[in-house]
Amino acid sequence: MRIIVPFANRDPKSRLAPVLSAAERREFALAMLCDVVDAVERTGYEPELLLDEPLDLEATIDGGPSAAVVDDAAALLGSLPTTVDDRPLTVAVNAALDDGPDQAVVMADLALATPTALRRLFAAGGDVAIVPGRGGGTNALVVRDPAFFVDYHGASYRDHRQIVADAGLSADVVDSMRLATDVDEPSDLLEVLLHGDGRARQWLVEAGFEVDDGDDGRVGVRRGLK
Amino acid sequence: MRIIVPFANRDPKSRLAPVLSAAERREFALAMLCDVVDAVERTGYEPELLLDEPLDLEATIDGGPSAAVVDDAAALLGSLPTTVDDRPLTVAVNAALDDGPDQAVVMADLALATPTALRRLFAAGGDVAIVPGRGGGTNALVVRDPAFFVDYHGASYRDHRQIVADAGLSADVVDSMRLATDVDEPSDLLEVLLHGDGRARQWLVEAGFEVDDGDDGRVGVRRGLK
Repeated sequence: MRIIVPFANRDPKSRLAPVLSAAERREFALAMLCDVVDAVERTGYEPELLLDEPLDLEATIDGGPSAAVVDDAAALLGSLPTTVDDRPLTVAVNAALDDGPDQAVVMADLALATPTALRRLFAAGGDVAIVPGRGGGTNALVVRDPAFFVDYHGASYRDHRQIVADAGLSADVVDSMRLATDVDEPSDLLEVLLHGDGRARQWLVEAGFEVDDGDDGRVGVRRGLK
Repeated sequence: MRIIVPFANRDPKSRLAPVLSAAERREFALAMLCDVVDAVERTGYEPELLLDEPLDLEATIDGGPSAAVVDDAAALLGSLPTTVDDRPLTVAVNAALDDGPDQAVVMADLALATPTALRRLFAAGGDVAIVPGRGGGTNALVVRDPAFFVDYHGASYRDHRQIVADAGLSADVVDSMRLATDVDEPSDLLEVLLHGDGRARQWLVEAGFEVDDGDDGRVGVRRGLK
């Protein structure tokens, strides 16, 4: 099975702009990508990167809190098969899926992904196995039938179920909190701090983020001085 | 195994106040409780209710969109073993756990709970099996060792892991999006609309809620006219 990991290198994680600078977002996104690649590799598969523009790791160093992420990324990602496709995500993924059946698509911001969770996805049944993301998205897919295609705009989980039904295919939905957690917004950082164990969590800790165990019963994150 | 379902009958789901009236919140909370009870029963267990005040189903009728929920709840919940304990949740649950080992605690707002997801919890290993909730909470537990106790204040998932470690016990963490989704805030309603298949989803639909597939790529909920 071919495992595609799309990664938006151009202005990544823009919804984290309220809490992270542009340079920090590039580094943090890279740390999450490395965690995902690492988790996929530990299932025994070699992931393929699908980029919207070539990785320019040097450009991520300025202003970020840790150059170690960059060195680590260069070592981990440099040798992976890579496709650069600057078209929108949906178009680029469908072009990749056209290469044949038995492919998986795993998003690069699944900072809680573990080999155990990914193995559950890869072993799921159905012509299409779907991992819904929090908020209506689709975080990962296994596609075994060429009649399926992706449409990532809007509530893609619902749309993907409809595409499966319209094509007369079967779907298996994988129930995983780890894979359902894509990191888009500041509130998602709490999940990484609480449940992550890789580079992304480490990056947040080094950047001063910590769990804010509020007195009102709600838990959040705060960023302290380094 | 004894399955305890705590239910806060007094001003339930206060964080949904921006989108639901007090009467609506009582009905919606009741619909979720019924879904959870139903899912537990379909695993072959009979749940026990742990209430902070007696259920007064008649009082929920005024102003809510559907009295069918109340009739259904009366039929489903009326015959269940029930304990009323008006102390804080942590104290009440610990008092129940004192009755002996092999007990589960499943929160009443897990509107996406299915028998399949609950079976994974009940079959999990460890002296304590924990289902983290989104946002640092603890949505469900299986407790097999009397040295464990709960503390639901704040980031309880982290605290429960610490209590397990301090007592020299083993923990198994259950990775389920369905069980990780407790319904506290308006954004959680989207998850119920997309992934629910029971009374809670039906209640939202009848109350006019629908998925708002925003043009900006973010998905939310809106409430239309009935």
